Amino acid sequence: MRSRLHYRRESRGVEFERVIFFTDAVFAIALTLLVVEVGVPETVRGAADDPGALLEALGDKVPLLAAFFLGCFVIGSYWAAHHRFMATLDAVDRGFIGLTVVYLAFVALLPFPTGVLGEFSSNPISMVAFALNMAAVSSIEAVMLVHARRRDLLRDQLSDDVYSWVLRMELSPVALFLVSMPVAFVAPWLAVVVWSLSVPLQAIWNRRQPGTASQYLS
Amino acid sequence: MRSRLHYRRESRGVEFERVIFFTDAVFAIALTLLVVEVGVPETVRGAADDPGALLEALGDKVPLLAAFFLGCFVIGSYWAAHHRFMATLDAVDRGFIGLTVVYLAFVALLPFPTGVLGEFSSNPISMVAFALNMAAVSSIEAVMLVHARRRDLLRDQLSDDVYSWVLRMELSPVALFLVSMPVAFVAPWLAVVVWSLSVPLQAIWNRRQPGTASQYLS
Amino acid sequence: MRSRLHYRRESRGVEFERVIFFTDAVFAIALTLLVVEVGVPETVRGAADDPGALLEALGDKVPLLAAFFLGCFVIGSYWAAHHRFMATLDAVDRGFIGLTVVYLAFVALLPFPTGVLGEFSSNPISMVAFALNMAAVSSIEAVMLVHARRRDLLRDQLSDDVYSWVLRMELSPVALFLVSMPVAFVAPWLAVVVWSLSVPLQAIWNRRQPGTASQYLS
Amino acid sequence: MRSRLHYRRESRGVEFERVIFFTDAVFAIALTLLVVEVGVPETVRGAADDPGALLEALGDKVPLLAAFFLGCFVIGSYWAAHHRFMATLDAVDRGFIGLTVVYLAFVALLPFPTGVLGEFSSNPISMVAFALNMAAVSSIEAVMLVHARRRDLLRDQLSDDVYSWVLRMELSPVALFLVSMPVAFVAPWLAVVVWSLSVPLQAIWNRRQPGTASQYLS
Repeated sequence: MRSRLHYRRESRGVEFERVIFFTDAVFAIALTLLVVEVGVPETVRGAADDPGALLEALGDKVPLLAAFFLGCFVIGSYWAAHHRFMATLDAVDRGFIGLTVVYLAFVALLPFPTGVLGEFSSNPISMVAFALNMAAVSSIEAVMLVHARRRDLLRDQLSDDVYSWVLRMELSPVALFLVSMPVAFVAPWLAVVVWSLSVPLQAIWNRRQPGTASQYLS
Repeated sequence: MRSRLHYRRESRGVEFERVIFFTDAVFAIALTLLVVEVGVPETVRGAADDPGALLEALGDKVPLLAAFFLGCFVIGSYWAAHHRFMATLDAVDRGFIGLTVVYLAFVALLPFPTGVLGEFSSNPISMVAFALNMAAVSSIEAVMLVHARRRDLLRDQLSDDVYSWVLRMELSPVALFLVSMPVAFVAPWLAVVVWSLSVPLQAIWNRRQPGTASQYLS
Repeated sequence: MRSRLHYRRESRGVEFERVIFFTDAVFAIALTLLVVEVGVPETVRGAADDPGALLEALGDKVPLLAAFFLGCFVIGSYWAAHHRFMATLDAVDRGFIGLTVVYLAFVALLPFPTGVLGEFSSNPISMVAFALNMAAVSSIEAVMLVHARRRDLLRDQLSDDVYSWVLRMELSPVALFLVSMPVAFVAPWLAVVVWSLSVPLQAIWNRRQPGTASQYLS
Repeated sequence: MRSRLHYRRESRGVEFERVIFFTDAVFAIALTLLVVEVGVPETVRGAADDPGALLEALGDKVPLLAAFFLGCFVIGSYWAAHHRFMATLDAVDRGFIGLTVVYLAFVALLPFPTGVLGEFSSNPISMVAFALNMAAVSSIEAVMLVHARRRDLLRDQLSDDVYSWVLRMELSPVALFLVSMPVAFVAPWLAVVVWSLSVPLQAIWNRRQPGTASQYLS
């Protein structure tokens, strides 16, 4: 029996796309939830109109705002990396979807260590918690690449040298995050310095790319 | 009267797709909201820089983090099941959209029993509440399949033996959830054991699949 | 200067689609936020393992859970109505986008009166607040239809009798919401009865549809 | 080795589209989170059924509701501006994606100054915080246009006069926001008056548009 109102499918590509858009939704929510941790300062009755008092109350929010922007930077960077990676895929399979769910669990967790970092900004344990979560996200990214290559999901075949170059590029932040953990106990801010080494490291790595890597990257 | 700026529709497939993307958005938000229940430990003034104190405060979060990952696993599994199911559809109708809204209400509710489980992890009532919510989601999934077949929404006609095989696969977790409820009163952790039986059960079921099932699954 | 990495647009239909998907995202979040109002009961140390105590604590949540399901029903119904309406459009313009933003502001507000209703379930003012919000959403829906017809955004030309039939169908819930407000002061639950009259009213209205309406609806 | 279940990509346009849909998701969540700041009034046991008491409690929410609608208006306007801007693009590149992440960080922050404004509605510092956040969003918008033109991402080449006209249109709200900050110390409500000047300013600007601008706008 045909129902009167049928909305028909027009594309077989919906299943591929929803893996991407589901990921994007989790990233977008994790990014936007960060603002909830900042929190609106509470009204001190009587002082509600006093610019100095509010300025001071907002001043107390500076570490939380710093954590907010750090969280945006981290989540934004992971999203951009996922965007770049998915552009190289032509298909997903069951196993890839399973890996995506594990990956998203750790992305969805990010507001938690970010909040801890904002609240306990000079405690080495905050740095360790944050680094552990980021190391987990980066590691699963690398597993996704290994899986995609093994199951033939990539748009173009990757030569062995490009593959090992990309894989090492994905794993180098993991090494930095692990190194930063003992460093945090020397001085918490030193852990942030170790993390930020990923920027020059990435630049050096990009120079050493094999000649055939542009086929993967473009 | 034509307005100067018209953004035109290019595809009749938007109506089918938005049922899927609306579902994905609800799943993504339910998954990401789980982290809100974990909550950032509050600053104990004076002890803010003490690694031991923060480690202990994070240690208190272990049951909440366990509930977070259990919730991610459950929501991720349901999302993957919905992804697999929708891939077999070629159209949706009014009734299917109505069922989807009921289904999403119970998906959106999942953070509630997950939060209760994190807070009361050794209380049988938490297990019962969680099992009830999951049984509801799984049952509506089965109703959606029945509806899709009756209204001719499936991409391929399902033979009777494949249909009853798939339906029993959808309903077997419901049976486990119902069985787990009295078991929870013997020992709460035993309920989790009963739930995890769904993994070997699924594997056994997959072996017994009718020869023509691959047409439905691929 | 061409950058090496360009991700190109493939469809002119993205602008039409994002009006729909933006709407879906707001609906999905409003629906999923409803669960936050329910709230996890707080641990009473010592009684954490006591089934009776937790059952009682969950029992106190019944009005909040009822409000959650009412909210899901309302938001789900509005989403389904928006889905049905957009299926009749072939284009959107600037003005339509502006109306959509106003519409979404009132959709995003829905968790507020829903939460008030859960907290103050036997207070007539809760009913009035909820009815006012729903009347606003339904009224803007009607304005969107008027705009779409005037600016020639509809897929098919609507004959005058179908148009006035659809418009009256859109506006009849508004009338019910307005009537329910004074009724709420007689007895709050009577307001819910008035709202639920929309179901038989809709059925009667569907019977009286002009012969040419199926062209609009299918 | 080919896995049995492959979901294939059907369009190369997914990478362009996900930049847009990720943006839409952040906008939708920021808009919907605004309602969380409003907050449900707490039950005063005994007075739960008293219409007068609830009406008074809701009356206390008026500044928060005003901030909610102001926030919806601002976020909705920015979303509509982004919609209009993206319609002129035919591609995005790495740099544009990076700018989008910075842009979204400031969009995701908007619920924070909106909440402060609702809580401290007659404090000039609230006005300054809100104006600063909006000036940041508007400035990044202008940078995105400059980048898009330089990297040849626009659908049509922009003549120099249209380009400088559009750029000045994007930057005029920034000027208003900056002017409004000292004005807020004279009287907080005057800052709102300065912001609202953007409406007539926009109208005047539209009249002075170069003849070839319609090519950019349509």
